[in-house]
Amino acid sequence: MTRHDGRAPYQLREVRITRNWLDHAEGSVLVEFGRTRVLCAASFTAGVPRWLKGQGTGWVTAEYEMLPRSTNTRSDRESRKGRVGGRTHEISRLIGRSLRAIIDTKALGENTIVLDCDVLQADGGTRTAAITGAYVALVDAIEDARSKKLLSATAAPLTGSVSAISVGIVNGEPVLDLDYPEDVNAGTDMNVVMTGSGEYVEVQGTAEGKPFDRDLLNTLLDLAAKGCADLTAMQEAALTATPRERLR
Amino acid sequence: MTRHDGRAPYQLREVRITRNWLDHAEGSVLVEFGRTRVLCAASFTAGVPRWLKGQGTGWVTAEYEMLPRSTNTRSDRESRKGRVGGRTHEISRLIGRSLRAIIDTKALGENTIVLDCDVLQADGGTRTAAITGAYVALVDAIEDARSKKLLSATAAPLTGSVSAISVGIVNGEPVLDLDYPEDVNAGTDMNVVMTGSGEYVEVQGTAEGKPFDRDLLNTLLDLAAKGCADLTAMQEAALTATPRERLR
Amino acid sequence: MTRHDGRAPYQLREVRITRNWLDHAEGSVLVEFGRTRVLCAASFTAGVPRWLKGQGTGWVTAEYEMLPRSTNTRSDRESRKGRVGGRTHEISRLIGRSLRAIIDTKALGENTIVLDCDVLQADGGTRTAAITGAYVALVDAIEDARSKKLLSATAAPLTGSVSAISVGIVNGEPVLDLDYPEDVNAGTDMNVVMTGSGEYVEVQGTAEGKPFDRDLLNTLLDLAAKGCADLTAMQEAALTATPRERLR
Amino acid sequence: MTRHDGRAPYQLREVRITRNWLDHAEGSVLVEFGRTRVLCAASFTAGVPRWLKGQGTGWVTAEYEMLPRSTNTRSDRESRKGRVGGRTHEISRLIGRSLRAIIDTKALGENTIVLDCDVLQADGGTRTAAITGAYVALVDAIEDARSKKLLSATAAPLTGSVSAISVGIVNGEPVLDLDYPEDVNAGTDMNVVMTGSGEYVEVQGTAEGKPFDRDLLNTLLDLAAKGCADLTAMQEAALTATPRERLR
Amino acid sequence: MTRHDGRAPYQLREVRITRNWLDHAEGSVLVEFGRTRVLCAASFTAGVPRWLKGQGTGWVTAEYEMLPRSTNTRSDRESRKGRVGGRTHEISRLIGRSLRAIIDTKALGENTIVLDCDVLQADGGTRTAAITGAYVALVDAIEDARSKKLLSATAAPLTGSVSAISVGIVNGEPVLDLDYPEDVNAGTDMNVVMTGSGEYVEVQGTAEGKPFDRDLLNTLLDLAAKGCADLTAMQEAALTATPRERLR
Amino acid sequence: MTRHDGRAPYQLREVRITRNWLDHAEGSVLVEFGRTRVLCAASFTAGVPRWLKGQGTGWVTAEYEMLPRSTNTRSDRESRKGRVGGRTHEISRLIGRSLRAIIDTKALGENTIVLDCDVLQADGGTRTAAITGAYVALVDAIEDARSKKLLSATAAPLTGSVSAISVGIVNGEPVLDLDYPEDVNAGTDMNVVMTGSGEYVEVQGTAEGKPFDRDLLNTLLDLAAKGCADLTAMQEAALTATPRERLR
Repeated sequence: MTRHDGRAPYQLREVRITRNWLDHAEGSVLVEFGRTRVLCAASFTAGVPRWLKGQGTGWVTAEYEMLPRSTNTRSDRESRKGRVGGRTHEISRLIGRSLRAIIDTKALGENTIVLDCDVLQADGGTRTAAITGAYVALVDAIEDARSKKLLSATAAPLTGSVSAISVGIVNGEPVLDLDYPEDVNAGTDMNVVMTGSGEYVEVQGTAEGKPFDRDLLNTLLDLAAKGCADLTAMQEAALTATPRERLR
Repeated sequence: MTRHDGRAPYQLREVRITRNWLDHAEGSVLVEFGRTRVLCAASFTAGVPRWLKGQGTGWVTAEYEMLPRSTNTRSDRESRKGRVGGRTHEISRLIGRSLRAIIDTKALGENTIVLDCDVLQADGGTRTAAITGAYVALVDAIEDARSKKLLSATAAPLTGSVSAISVGIVNGEPVLDLDYPEDVNAGTDMNVVMTGSGEYVEVQGTAEGKPFDRDLLNTLLDLAAKGCADLTAMQEAALTATPRERLR
Repeated sequence: MTRHDGRAPYQLREVRITRNWLDHAEGSVLVEFGRTRVLCAASFTAGVPRWLKGQGTGWVTAEYEMLPRSTNTRSDRESRKGRVGGRTHEISRLIGRSLRAIIDTKALGENTIVLDCDVLQADGGTRTAAITGAYVALVDAIEDARSKKLLSATAAPLTGSVSAISVGIVNGEPVLDLDYPEDVNAGTDMNVVMTGSGEYVEVQGTAEGKPFDRDLLNTLLDLAAKGCADLTAMQEAALTATPRERLR
Repeated sequence: MTRHDGRAPYQLREVRITRNWLDHAEGSVLVEFGRTRVLCAASFTAGVPRWLKGQGTGWVTAEYEMLPRSTNTRSDRESRKGRVGGRTHEISRLIGRSLRAIIDTKALGENTIVLDCDVLQADGGTRTAAITGAYVALVDAIEDARSKKLLSATAAPLTGSVSAISVGIVNGEPVLDLDYPEDVNAGTDMNVVMTGSGEYVEVQGTAEGKPFDRDLLNTLLDLAAKGCADLTAMQEAALTATPRERLR
Repeated sequence: MTRHDGRAPYQLREVRITRNWLDHAEGSVLVEFGRTRVLCAASFTAGVPRWLKGQGTGWVTAEYEMLPRSTNTRSDRESRKGRVGGRTHEISRLIGRSLRAIIDTKALGENTIVLDCDVLQADGGTRTAAITGAYVALVDAIEDARSKKLLSATAAPLTGSVSAISVGIVNGEPVLDLDYPEDVNAGTDMNVVMTGSGEYVEVQGTAEGKPFDRDLLNTLLDLAAKGCADLTAMQEAALTATPRERLR
Repeated sequence: MTRHDGRAPYQLREVRITRNWLDHAEGSVLVEFGRTRVLCAASFTAGVPRWLKGQGTGWVTAEYEMLPRSTNTRSDRESRKGRVGGRTHEISRLIGRSLRAIIDTKALGENTIVLDCDVLQADGGTRTAAITGAYVALVDAIEDARSKKLLSATAAPLTGSVSAISVGIVNGEPVLDLDYPEDVNAGTDMNVVMTGSGEYVEVQGTAEGKPFDRDLLNTLLDLAAKGCADLTAMQEAALTATPRERLR
């Protein structure tokens, strides 16, 4: 059986990672998974939130939000509604946790990095694109801090790389990297966050409608491992293509 | 190696399910996992939210909240802060999804059931206790609606049962049903929601500090299956001990 | 004429005061006036709000809230509405003032006690039950602070005891401790807060529909004095039955 | 013993009631109790809030607020803080209840009257001045509605008049109509709302610091009765001095 | 062609500036442009907002708000809606900028002056009346600070005077100082803020419906200059009539 | 004297107008004024807000917001602060008014167009870029509605074109299209919105620090007219380069 856009079940959409899309941010990436387009900005600032002060450790956090017309029909702005929705909170927290998993906060020192992930266009997989792009922006922000002597040349806060992908059951078949039309029809939906060395950072599987069994879970985990390995290679390619110091 | 409270790794804390703890609610349960104590109230009302009207399907949703002094040190009320926190939103949504997984919303008709899960005392595992208790309250609310002819005698909105448990790595060892002291020291933390027939509704695993590998994931899933099976038996026992119509 | 539940006009509902209902709080009481059930938790913390700092005096305050399904039909959560309602504010302030009336804040030193009064089930008289139960929780929290040397053994912040009861005119007859069905039919409704020595801390009488005259006011005050004296005896009994140090 | 401004214990401050202070409102009064100055505007509109529709009864409600520089030192605006404070809610509710006590909502028909009481300058007794002034604005608004045929000529929604005064213990002596310097030093503080025929609508007594006994309560009630009788006479004088139809 | 109230095109409404309308504020003015009535209170306090600390400069800011029944039909309070509307923000910012234009913040030292402009009655031109009145209140507040030695006798924070007026096209004719009926029918609407020496502080012209050309713009600017010159004379008259030290 | 980036005083920065930058929106433009980059999305929906219903006229409105890292240092999100700032409100209202000036709402019928203008990168002139880009997005949205028969082929809601530019005094010299470093040093700052036929829609001039005289005002208006004429030509070029029907 074929997917509606002709992809094989284990195939990612076309992925593009454009570094330094912004001039001001310490690191920035426009990441595209097909038509999904997320702008990831990494802001490096000296100091940590009050509750962390004096402990010699840094902080990495993230904020995710969708532009009102990133979607098919316009959504109201959360700023106008005066409250941040549950889904927005949930995804922001997921991105933050995922990046902290590959950060040695001691090595970061008392510095904070905020990852702003703003969805400019949504076509499924916005959270996985955000994590995948934010990692690259994070690497650039750390390099930038090193070049400005905000971090010592030998500080190594990164302990690995991280990427994320969605997997699910569409028309009874396990597939990788669901776009929006697939997502709304998916029976089971899972987001998997993995390190470059193939370990799990986060596994979030949800039965939509019908519970799933252990065999299916295993198949989906296999697919996700394949997808994250592909993304890891693309992240590396993007980061080595042009050294950070050449970008500006 | 022994757990700090003497339990075996695969052992639940003492679980108590007290039905009809409230007089007004259509279904209500005080559920205890050791010292964790959650009050689950199921409110059955005719009608559905506006966006569902006229489709002939019902709605099940949940709201989770912690009392300010359910915890070791007092937390500020979310009502006073004027905003609901991300964690509260996230858990409310998880409980709602978990219960909808075993509900046939067509069979429910245009009726709404709200599950209020208020944590009276917290000692780890509040979300898993909430799901486990809310299921029992939900069963009672449906039975109550049937007895009041709000549902026809033959309507069967329940398609199964659901329970939830946490698993994690404590002191290097996989254990079931972590209490708070274990939870803060856990390397990996996973919440698993399963049906009574042993299928997955939700799998949420998070590396705290150190990513985890596939073997460990499998071990944790085995433990969780054991825990959910035990909880399913306790839910059944609670529901059959006393028929609903005898409770009031 | 008889009341709908068979009580005499001057008769309280069955009152139960269960100390130490929670494990974490410095003092805690589950207080029941018939079917009304309020969980009172007293949190003792060193330090005072900013505006009191450096004056050598302590602070006692209270927060009252109702669980959404404490009532006959479910109410929306104030945390979700993003604002605390007028009634909730009003009752929280009343409870705080009532307890401060029997506290010598100088003797308390720069310490704060917060009384959280959460209504688990409402059947009329929730504010009077809250004050009556909160006093007992407050005594236990002070004793606990003394045993932990947060207060000196000779510090005597308590200057008396306090309890509260409602009185009103139901079917033309003055009655004590109205339950919800009586409350909605009451012509005049009064809440009276008194010390154990029979003095007034707060008198709040409201004509519902029809103004009331001085004679009626006097009759209601007599009834309230009787009710508060009864509650004072029950508070004493609860507090002396088991010394605090034996409770845990 | 003399009061700091030379008044006798049973003496009101100079009271001024200026009708029709605004051009747009259906009724409006600038009421002054000494330096306390409250602008009361009565807005009459056809229709009632949703929860009252179709019952053939009207609605009277009030909103109280202080201008930021009505007080000695500037207070932040509640609109900027994004939340209405507890005291503001409490007083708004008190004013609304007080006016509803002398309104026959059936006779009002499905119409709403909102009383906006904005404190332009505060020197103690703002809530009692607000009630006293709002009554006069309410009478004018009803007359105005009659003249515009929004109410029939025979409709008689007013069942009496209402006024309010504060009483308290200052320097050990019971006094009437406390100004701000007296209020901050008062041992006991009571606000009494009475009808023109001398019955109680609301009695709110609060011990500040030291509980009070029954004798003192009686003395304060006597003083309040005297004050409300004086205010009733002034309200009548203001209303009869110039007929409403001559005012514009 | 004549205006509906008989004024000439270049004619202001009757303007009244009443100083010291409040007892507590350091400066206060009730300013009236015809039936438009704005209460301006200037609050002088030592210290500056956090972001200005240690720079040796002062701060002047303003808050504008309309009472709910200042208008023809009642508007909801922004405090109850929980958010300040765009128009309120916009006008508050305009008033603040206008006054800062004639303040030497260095000469003010680390002191803050807040101008509260509350519209008691609205009939067009509330923002221009507010600026015109707030200037006079500001002068009085500075004089008051000097008399209390909060400012040195030689400090001269005022660098000029400021007033404001509206101009617009009504029935095809350029007119000065539009009242509300004119404002709603105006084709183009412009607010001009000028110093006493005839220079511009702010020019805000808005085409309502139909764009306007350069000639019309020039005509409107001429009219505005005439209006501001008249207002400047009235401000001076008000300020010299009675020296500040005689007012209280 | 030369500008810091070498531009002549009357010279715009490089302007780029990229149509159809988004796939979902009915019209969308990425507009760049030098490094300032604003994403304008036009959403066309049938129906109008409640207060306009049944009048046969349409509605055009705008919402402006800055991404947190569009600026040099990160700003907090307004959605997280729970309130929209005054500047954001003010600019949103300006954009909406500017576009309504060239719309015949009768010809639009009961349809709504929302213009979302999100600043991806800020370097001065964000509001003028937003208006200039939003006009192009608006034209495309109207064309799109026509092609989908949501508007009749003969409906002509556009009555002209609109663009906007900033002018100001930098280092004593009047200049066009200020970038951020110029803006912070500008003595006077003016935003001018003009139609394609050279008439004014909005003129907003603000003295920063020092009031300005009539001659300077005239010079600035001349500069702005030149800038808007240039922008009008670029808008036309962008719109004619590729017909809308070829874009997708």
